[in-house]
Parts: sequence; C-alpha cells; structure tokens
Amino acid sequence: MSKIITVSRQFGSGGRAIGKAVAEKLGIPCYDSEIIARVAQSSGLSKEYIEQTGEYSAHLTWLGRALGATHSAGTLNNEDRVWVEQRKIILDLAENGPCVIVGRCADYILKDRSDLLTVFVHADDKSRAERIVRLYGERAEKPEKRLREKDKRRSAYYKYYTETEWGVASNYHLALDSGALGIEKCVEIIVCAYSAENGK
Amino acid sequence: MSKIITVSRQFGSGGRAIGKAVAEKLGIPCYDSEIIARVAQSSGLSKEYIEQTGEYSAHLTWLGRALGATHSAGTLNNEDRVWVEQRKIILDLAENGPCVIVGRCADYILKDRSDLLTVFVHADDKSRAERIVRLYGERAEKPEKRLREKDKRRSAYYKYYTETEWGVASNYHLALDSGALGIEKCVEIIVCAYSAENGK
Repeated sequence: MSKIITVSRQFGSGGRAIGKAVAEKLGIPCYDSEIIARVAQSSGLSKEYIEQTGEYSAHLTWLGRALGATHSAGTLNNEDRVWVEQRKIILDLAENGPCVIVGRCADYILKDRSDLLTVFVHADDKSRAERIVRLYGERAEKPEKRLREKDKRRSAYYKYYTETEWGVASNYHLALDSGALGIEKCVEIIVCAYSAENGK
Repeated sequence: MSKIITVSRQFGSGGRAIGKAVAEKLGIPCYDSEIIARVAQSSGLSKEYIEQTGEYSAHLTWLGRALGATHSAGTLNNEDRVWVEQRKIILDLAENGPCVIVGRCADYILKDRSDLLTVFVHADDKSRAERIVRLYGERAEKPEKRLREKDKRRSAYYKYYTETEWGVASNYHLALDSGALGIEKCVEIIVCAYSAENGK
C-alpha cells in the first residue's frame, strides 16, 4: 500500500532539505520542482511564475477552488489554472506509490487518503534568517522582513484554498522545530513516524 | 546538565500516559500529581481544587501574574496562590535534574531554560472521545462536549498567564497527533527528540 509524506514548512526552516533527506533514507521519490515542471508543461506557463503562484498567490477567485474539485480548467485565469493543474498532478503522483511532497498544499489536496503522514516544519526567526542568507544570499530587504513576507503569503494562500489555518499543530500529524532539533534529527523523527503509519 | 521535557496536551489525547511512558523509558521522574500534592502542602488548599484551578481557571487577576515573577504570595486570592505556588514548584523541580512535567503551563514557566524540550500532544475528536469514555466512563454530557469544554478552559488559562496561543505548532519543539501515530510511537519519537537536544 502506498504511503505519502507531505511536508509543509515555514520559509527558511529547511523543510525542503528535510523532505529530500527523508525520501532518500526511505528510498522513495521527493516531489517539489518536479511538480512545477509538470504544471509548466501542461499549462504552458513559466516555471518561475508557477513556483511563485502555486504557493504564494492569495488573489485567486472562488472559481479556481470550485473547479479544482472537478479537474476542469476551462476559462480560468492563470493563477486558477496553476491551482487546478497542481492539484491534479499531486493527486496523480500520490497514486503512483510512496513519495514525499514538499509544500503546495499537498496535505490538504490529499487529505482524504488514509495513508498520509502530514508534517509541518518551523523554526525560530534567528535560525531561519541565518539559513536564508546562507542559501539565497543577502538582499536589500532584511532577512527577518523576507521571512515575514513569505510566511504571510504562504499562510494566506493556504487559507484561501483550504479554509484551514496554516501552522496550527492539530492540523498535522507531526510538527517539528528544526531550529531546536536540528535538520538531521527531524529527518530521523519523520522516518520513525512513517513506520508507525505503515504499521497501523 | 539537566534536561526537561514538558508535555502540553489536548484533553483525552493521552498526553499524560505518553509523558509517564517517556519518563519510564528514560529513567527520569514524571511530575504531574506530585506538583498538585506539593501545591496542596504549601498552600493548604485541597488537591481537587488545585487540580482544577492550576490548569483550567481563567478568572485570575493581573496580580497573580505580576506576583508570579517575584515568588511572593502575599495577599492573593486562592486561584492566584495556586499559580504562584505551582510556578515556584515547577522551577524547583526543574533545578533538581532531568524530568518530564505534564501540563500546568510548565513550557511557559521554564521557557528561559536552554535545556528544554517542549511537546504538544493532540488527537482527532473521535480518538479522544473514545479515550475519555474508556478512562473516565460515561457522563450525562456527550464526550465531544466534554472535550470542547476542557480544551476551551485549558486554552484560556494558558493564554491568560502566558499571553501566548495554546496549540500553535511554532510554540513547541515537537507536536504529535497521538490518534494517527499511536501512543507508543509518540513515546518513541519524544525519546528520539530528547537525545537530539542532549546532543546539541
């Protein structure tokens, strides 16, 4: 029976790196840029646009959400098309077998599956600020401001589509502070939790 | 160096049982009823009153919180006295060495320690309703209503004293869904996370 791990994360918490390392340890694929590439292919929109829109945009119409349920992508605007395509691709990937999916509201999109392990990764501002400067370099904007901005937009996007709060502990099977626990320990804990789910 | 685990939990999530099992596995004490007994001894109030007041009462005055910081218990009302004594005892217990402390805002009271692992345990309503009926028996009130009531009061009490939201993932190092993961797996995960903290 297939088994899916979704990793939602605060910007700069290392959630993506954790997802990849978990997948590697378990010998299963990790989908992240793969999803963006597929949405680009099926929609004709650019990868950059999809990367931003598929997780950060919160200006979508009610139509996108309504049509998301039927997989139809008739007369939608670009933001709605990204959501509809992204949703379809995530549902397909999950059907293919065990995998890790990072971000993109996959926890919500797959919520009806009984073989799901939903993870939320967060960290204190200091750890995250250090991480984003290390990974993405300095910007004109202070790292703390960049964190706020990204979190705010992810949270708004998530809420718009799922009508659920992002980052509330009870919405996830497992929530981890990667700043306190460290990236490697987070990987170990998720692998440990995964075997529980399989054993149920 | 001592190492403290605090377990905050939704009513009926098995957080207390998990805390006890973790302590047993690690060979360290678990404080829960011990704290109540000590507060009873030092305040002269009944254990039953303290059990309810020290976690559920949200009708405390600003005075209790203000004086909590100075350990003074001058002319407080009973609810405030419970908070002040409870706070003092938790600080003392943590000084004695590694331990698990269940509930009673210990995560907030000990927040300035660097050797703390804060855990939040939650579960879906169905799992929790089954658990409270199994443990505490049927009542006139439906189990779902009992859950709501207790959660609401714990949350209000926590917010009153800590000015922080209860159950928000980013306020804990580790948050676990005991309904999905199972009690034993939660114990295993906390023990795993504890070694990370020690290793830092």
